[in-house]
Amino acid sequence: MPETKPPAAPIDPARLKAMMDKVSTFGGEPNGAMNRLTLSKTDGQARDWLGSWFRDQGFEQQIDAIGNQFGKLPLAGANAPVVMVGSHIDSQPNGGRFDGALGVISACEAVLAVSERLKAENRLSACNFQVVNWTNEEGARFQPSLLGSSVFAGAAELEWALDRKDGDGVTVRQSLAEIGYAGTDKVARPDALIELHIEGDDKLFKTGETFGVFTRYWGATKYRLAFLGQQAHTGPTPMALRKDAVLAAAYLIADLKELAGAHGLDLHTSVGRLEVFPNSPNTVPSEAVLFIELRSGSPETLAEAEASMKESIASAAAKANVGYEVRSIDRRRAGGFAPGLIKLAEQVAAGKGQSARRLDTIGGHDAVAMSEVCPSIVMAVRSQNGVIHHPTEFTTPEDQAVGTQILADMLYALACDGVQSIASKESSA
Amino acid sequence: MPETKPPAAPIDPARLKAMMDKVSTFGGEPNGAMNRLTLSKTDGQARDWLGSWFRDQGFEQQIDAIGNQFGKLPLAGANAPVVMVGSHIDSQPNGGRFDGALGVISACEAVLAVSERLKAENRLSACNFQVVNWTNEEGARFQPSLLGSSVFAGAAELEWALDRKDGDGVTVRQSLAEIGYAGTDKVARPDALIELHIEGDDKLFKTGETFGVFTRYWGATKYRLAFLGQQAHTGPTPMALRKDAVLAAAYLIADLKELAGAHGLDLHTSVGRLEVFPNSPNTVPSEAVLFIELRSGSPETLAEAEASMKESIASAAAKANVGYEVRSIDRRRAGGFAPGLIKLAEQVAAGKGQSARRLDTIGGHDAVAMSEVCPSIVMAVRSQNGVIHHPTEFTTPEDQAVGTQILADMLYALACDGVQSIASKESSA
Repeated sequence: MPETKPPAAPIDPARLKAMMDKVSTFGGEPNGAMNRLTLSKTDGQARDWLGSWFRDQGFEQQIDAIGNQFGKLPLAGANAPVVMVGSHIDSQPNGGRFDGALGVISACEAVLAVSERLKAENRLSACNFQVVNWTNEEGARFQPSLLGSSVFAGAAELEWALDRKDGDGVTVRQSLAEIGYAGTDKVARPDALIELHIEGDDKLFKTGETFGVFTRYWGATKYRLAFLGQQAHTGPTPMALRKDAVLAAAYLIADLKELAGAHGLDLHTSVGRLEVFPNSPNTVPSEAVLFIELRSGSPETLAEAEASMKESIASAAAKANVGYEVRSIDRRRAGGFAPGLIKLAEQVAAGKGQSARRLDTIGGHDAVAMSEVCPSIVMAVRSQNGVIHHPTEFTTPEDQAVGTQILADMLYALACDGVQSIASKESSA
Repeated sequence: MPETKPPAAPIDPARLKAMMDKVSTFGGEPNGAMNRLTLSKTDGQARDWLGSWFRDQGFEQQIDAIGNQFGKLPLAGANAPVVMVGSHIDSQPNGGRFDGALGVISACEAVLAVSERLKAENRLSACNFQVVNWTNEEGARFQPSLLGSSVFAGAAELEWALDRKDGDGVTVRQSLAEIGYAGTDKVARPDALIELHIEGDDKLFKTGETFGVFTRYWGATKYRLAFLGQQAHTGPTPMALRKDAVLAAAYLIADLKELAGAHGLDLHTSVGRLEVFPNSPNTVPSEAVLFIELRSGSPETLAEAEASMKESIASAAAKANVGYEVRSIDRRRAGGFAPGLIKLAEQVAAGKGQSARRLDTIGGHDAVAMSEVCPSIVMAVRSQNGVIHHPTEFTTPEDQAVGTQILADMLYALACDGVQSIASKESSA
């Protein structure tokens, strides 16, 4: 057994639990279900509570134009580097209590613990800490997801984001005004971003581990592709003369499955949506539109897969004697989280005798959006049975405390040593 | 050159052309387009004109409960065998003038010519002739097609047929009443049915021939098949754990194309309609419903193809790790037209130095429905460029006359020799 060190900045697990219990009252139900859709009344109540907590603890609150809620604790000079810590408190409909909320509440507890420790040591911090609660991470009420962090990182236009509508036609702009979170503060980009989140998968649960570090985020290349055949009667039309768009789709779908197999576990491929025209039982289809996704943690794999897919598209079209056109291409970059932050997380965990399993995140996190503009990381604590987006979503108070303590000790290290060591997004290897 | 005989019962080509011109005024447009949807106002006008022609020529008109219009010329005793001759005068929307109408008008002309010839020879007929105009052959306004002949042949229930609705919710029953063709006559099954039709394909046109005999009608086996997978996120769900219903569909669609290739020209396969659930770009499809058709002129090929398809279904499901269920199966029998009538048509054509190309009919004809209850045949005259269901559909007056003369001489032979030779549906070979 490696020697384990005591916490550098001890958190208060009871206080953490009390805060989690409190925030869960906003939109929470007795069965564990959480209904805190972004910018809803319950989201507004949770935000108000968080704002009052900021005030009580001496955090300076700021709200920006997309409603992102910030609370900065000035432990260093006004021009000192800023380390942002947090996640989101919006939830899926009938979702769970931990997805997002743990990241905001653990940030509050960790920054408070660091502040208390520095005070006890009568020590100045090398940086300031800023808790963040991002708007609309979930993308359940308004699309796309990661809206607040994407606007903050400059990947989405503010006006466009404010004009997004929910299913009832209500805009983000109206909703922000209704709950009083149409802010005007200009918040500068931080020097680093750290997010703690529940894993939302069962890798830690299955291996019996508590803690993990996401090292890579998967990218996605999405094609909307149309095969273009010719409408004809399925009865008399000779097989050799048919131009069947669905047949080409079939060849390509089978090829895409093969393609994933050829790349082991590092490539996911799918055709989740398929539109057929005219879609009549006795008519050879003239058009088949495929919504194709290629996903990988490796940019190289993604590029290789796209090149192979292009060959398969041409070959499927030729085999079925149809044409094709690419209607749209969306690309989300694959990449890695900041090596300096990964190293820091692993060192702190190791110091506590905690394993830190390296994980990929395939779905989105606000830290993925932020990763484009500053060194960023997402760390994970175990989800019981891997459940997420469901009332039975659960992470034990003990596991929450383990993750929060690692977070606090990382922040303490940055407070003592400064952010130089984690400033680069490039690998030191 | 073989010696050619003069017509046994000479038709009057000018009278035939005048009748075709007249019937084309009901729903016809200057550019050749025909709009005579079944039981429409123009269909009613064409029926009324045909009825008045029946009266003028001494034909006894009968209308049955599904609106089939019959005109019987009593040339023999009341208990003599009946040979029915005809087709349909309804058209597709924006269709052509010859599809169906030629079969009714040529029947009128042929029966009249036979009657005139018998009178001139002062000879009694061995059988009576009954012209028929079937209701809703096209299936354009009401589905299914072949409605009148199917009810007459007992393959469709009368009440069910009367309840069929068009796109505006109007029933067959209401439409029959509106144009005055809700008949009450009970019409007995004939001893034979002969139909002349335009080919509606380009086989005769390409070989430069005028006349053909359909010897086989294709059957169809139609499956509605659901592959049942499991909904999952297309992002994180490991490829190996996915149960992708569309992937199974893709495997099967490719197999069905192979299957057709393995049977040469004698098997047509298709999946014209494909329903995908939930059909969301980032969700692995949980259900894919395929509308499959197998078509062949050979009952054996159809049975073999179905057996192969069943293996492919099981294999596609296994490969994609999904289940499946057959939601419905429809079978339309493949078969042959009456050998005695085929022989008669070929002999009469040969006597005139006319080739009689043997053809398959893949789409439906009223004679296919009638084939289940009496010896039946469809004969074809050349369509220019193979066009059908289009304003440019055209069969020359000369070609119409060739087909009508062969029809008249066939009827004359039956009048002289009786129907014994063609009474069997079995081949004499």
